[in-house]
Amino acid sequence: MEIVGAFNPGVIRYESDVVLLLRVAEAPLRNSRGEVAAATFDPSSGSIEVQRWAPGTKGLDLSDPRIVVFEGRTWLTSLSHLRVARSTDGVHFDVEDAPAISPATELESYGVEDPRITFLDGTYWINYTAVSQHGISTALASTRDFRTFKRHGIIFAPPNRDVTIFPEQIGGRYAALHRPMPEGLGDAAIWIGWSRDLMSWGDHSFVAQARHDRWDDHRIGGGAVPFRVNAGGQDAWLAVYHGVGRSSHRYSLGALLLDGRDPTRVIARSRAPILEPDAPYERTGFYGGVVFTCGVLAEGDAVRIYYGAADEVTAVADLSLEEILSGMS
Amino acid sequence: MEIVGAFNPGVIRYESDVVLLLRVAEAPLRNSRGEVAAATFDPSSGSIEVQRWAPGTKGLDLSDPRIVVFEGRTWLTSLSHLRVARSTDGVHFDVEDAPAISPATELESYGVEDPRITFLDGTYWINYTAVSQHGISTALASTRDFRTFKRHGIIFAPPNRDVTIFPEQIGGRYAALHRPMPEGLGDAAIWIGWSRDLMSWGDHSFVAQARHDRWDDHRIGGGAVPFRVNAGGQDAWLAVYHGVGRSSHRYSLGALLLDGRDPTRVIARSRAPILEPDAPYERTGFYGGVVFTCGVLAEGDAVRIYYGAADEVTAVADLSLEEILSGMS
Repeated sequence: MEIVGAFNPGVIRYESDVVLLLRVAEAPLRNSRGEVAAATFDPSSGSIEVQRWAPGTKGLDLSDPRIVVFEGRTWLTSLSHLRVARSTDGVHFDVEDAPAISPATELESYGVEDPRITFLDGTYWINYTAVSQHGISTALASTRDFRTFKRHGIIFAPPNRDVTIFPEQIGGRYAALHRPMPEGLGDAAIWIGWSRDLMSWGDHSFVAQARHDRWDDHRIGGGAVPFRVNAGGQDAWLAVYHGVGRSSHRYSLGALLLDGRDPTRVIARSRAPILEPDAPYERTGFYGGVVFTCGVLAEGDAVRIYYGAADEVTAVADLSLEEILSGMS
Repeated sequence: MEIVGAFNPGVIRYESDVVLLLRVAEAPLRNSRGEVAAATFDPSSGSIEVQRWAPGTKGLDLSDPRIVVFEGRTWLTSLSHLRVARSTDGVHFDVEDAPAISPATELESYGVEDPRITFLDGTYWINYTAVSQHGISTALASTRDFRTFKRHGIIFAPPNRDVTIFPEQIGGRYAALHRPMPEGLGDAAIWIGWSRDLMSWGDHSFVAQARHDRWDDHRIGGGAVPFRVNAGGQDAWLAVYHGVGRSSHRYSLGALLLDGRDPTRVIARSRAPILEPDAPYERTGFYGGVVFTCGVLAEGDAVRIYYGAADEVTAVADLSLEEILSGMS
């Protein structure tokens, strides 16, 4: 296997460090030019299995670089795990040699992806995407030290990803934005769910969807863990989310302003993207035209967005909260 | 509006009666021959809105009698509510004049469907399908008398339906089979989730999927609320489910035998359907070739299956538990 990407990190301050939890994507080394290969984790043997197709195999659909479709079945072209990186300045990181969380169950056989980190009640809660042939779901883990990690199972059944858990209780309950992916009836949209223990979730309701006349007219989903802001004297949550353009196919970032006491209520939303693919490493790469965040660090007016670029590398951008708010209505 | 179907009932014994909770489907009366119409509930006004398309309107997709697709948007051709019917003999029913549960929220604007009733802790818990332009989800309500009903919100985010709550706690938690509907990665399959309060659900895992060489080779989903059985000395749960054939498009019923203490584990499954569309009212109707159950009454060897036929009428079939078990492996 070779590493083909390190992107879409969750981020949090831990002691004097900034800690990233990176999605590290690996792909099988090819035996020959033109060969197609896909790796999966086999929970029964605990090992990585590699499926290979000879060059020129008929019926292979490789139109999306992220997946292989063959005879009605879908594989991912890379297998992801999660790995810790630490920094004292938030810009220069040391990446650990060993994975923090690797595929370990039947529901993670296609990989674990896109972690978000929420600090609550003295524990760092990590939700991540668990991918398998049974679908794309969201799992929960926790740590107190970013050295040992405890798993808590699947919290959102497939198809559901882009979950962000709010960093405090609201009205006596925990809350999370999530992104079910209905087909036919309904679009990929942002919902909110509630919990008393972080393990089980209910009282789901719809929050926001794609807007037909805007930059996010195809689909949207949660991005960074929401943080509290004072928006013109109003107590609110700011949630940086991603939106996809229908004709551009680009993944850009915007913000949702949610009511501080009732985050089911959208107060305002970015008219234009606050970050869009522009730099060469955002426009081209493993999957070009993508900026995608799983976490920000917000302090005063400074909003530091950590994000994956082109599903390949990790980048950082410093924005002004005041500017983000002024672009919302 | 006119009633176009009364089918897919939940069923339970209540005092000396057998109570059905019927899905009653209504459709707008047409103003002219060939007109197409679809009704939705508007939560802001609290009224029914009817969308009409003149005869011969171009671009209408009516290939599935259950839906209208026009300009990329989908409507249902009928709007369902839930209504109580009572019987002393389980065969002759009096249907109440007024609905028990009608569409009332943004997430029920396309109707409420397919109720299942589980008696737990002195209360009758009713889960039903909530359909809207935001997708197909599952809501929870409860009653103690089948006269007043309390709503508890959405328990499974879209796309998820065919939920059946087990009638007792297992290992100190409530359990439910549910049917997420992933597209692309994953098939419509039966999962199980767990809860401590029936309101919020987690620890989801995969239970069973379509079998490629059987009658249920296209998709499957939960049917009746599971009931306890003694299967050759083994404590188990019997869950009657529905399966759809890929080439036949028929909805038939089979049974899953789940471990009594660990219902994530499938012990056996019906080799052939235990009930399949055969009678004229099952083969033809609003949506022909369908038998679909939301509830059974099981006493000793007698398994009485109440079921919807052809998405139009309600029927009943008496089966033998021993025969059902002998057809499983």
